[in-house]
Amino acid sequence: MIHLSTADPGTGRRDADATKEMILRAARTMLARRSYTDITLKAVAEQAGVSAPLVVKYFGTKEQLFARLLTFEADAEALLDAPLDELGRHMVVHALTRQSEQRGDPVLRIVFAPLHSGHGDTLRANFQSQVVSRLARRLSGADAAVRAELAVGMLLGLGVMYGIARGDAVRAATIADLADRYSPAIQELITGGDVGGR
Amino acid sequence: MIHLSTADPGTGRRDADATKEMILRAARTMLARRSYTDITLKAVAEQAGVSAPLVVKYFGTKEQLFARLLTFEADAEALLDAPLDELGRHMVVHALTRQSEQRGDPVLRIVFAPLHSGHGDTLRANFQSQVVSRLARRLSGADAAVRAELAVGMLLGLGVMYGIARGDAVRAATIADLADRYSPAIQELITGGDVGGR
Repeated sequence: MIHLSTADPGTGRRDADATKEMILRAARTMLARRSYTDITLKAVAEQAGVSAPLVVKYFGTKEQLFARLLTFEADAEALLDAPLDELGRHMVVHALTRQSEQRGDPVLRIVFAPLHSGHGDTLRANFQSQVVSRLARRLSGADAAVRAELAVGMLLGLGVMYGIARGDAVRAATIADLADRYSPAIQELITGGDVGGR
Repeated sequence: MIHLSTADPGTGRRDADATKEMILRAARTMLARRSYTDITLKAVAEQAGVSAPLVVKYFGTKEQLFARLLTFEADAEALLDAPLDELGRHMVVHALTRQSEQRGDPVLRIVFAPLHSGHGDTLRANFQSQVVSRLARRLSGADAAVRAELAVGMLLGLGVMYGIARGDAVRAATIADLADRYSPAIQELITGGDVGGR
């Protein structure tokens, strides 16, 4: 899941990526628990178990660090990176792979919007424009906007059941089995015709 | 949405119900933001804008108040109160009606499990036994457990998109339209045959 440009610079690069991920996770945790103005870079560094200058080196200012948490740009690109007629399955496999390998799916961050006080609306707006609208623009047929929202909603629901409610049966199943069962409905919203009457 | 036994005792009963709902909401909010041990009944009362004795009158001890937040018993009964062959649509209509009338669906509380520190696992266990397993027991055919988890997950996803991400298109749609588009997939998990291959 970590992309190395060559096999060579291996360990150092991997350590840096792991450290960055720890810092982002610490920042996410703090943002879910207290208001943005109460959070300092120093506190984020402490929570992550690194020095404040290292946080600055990797992410810049507090504003720049938190901007990273509020964007879905890179996550949406990976999530939606498949031809339209295979996209439902790709989304399911991608989200579950992220969950099982990284113990979290960045797209699922939208779930915590209510706790981000002032930043919840920024998170929602970014989610809408970077994830949902990005999908909607690729859909043909009527009601692309509502179909895109429902398709993304369906995917989020799987993420909630797998990663947050931690359902025993889904966690015991293979990703391929879950994709077989769950992705046809997402695909139907993406490429199905008028499902109004079904 | 508030059930009055007769039209008569109207206002008083409605006020009491509204006050109870405010107290529960205050307790929920606090539980999502700090640890259980740090919360006092007095602080919940302050957050709700009522007196501590009133909280005690309505809910008893702090333990009894918070036990109410960690159970899904009554919510699950209402959510699953339909014949099996109409259950998918009933679940969608029920959840969206709760959301639009009460600005929140109690079943969606599971989403905040990661923030309830020690109580997250209690919330998850209750969700599993009171909601998911309750549905699974009614399903016939193979793999009832995984189908029930996926059906409930799908429903949660709609709630997340509607009430948390606040998608413009789903919020502009009617509940009937959303039910037409979304519930067939939930119904398929509930009463569909082997969907492995689709």
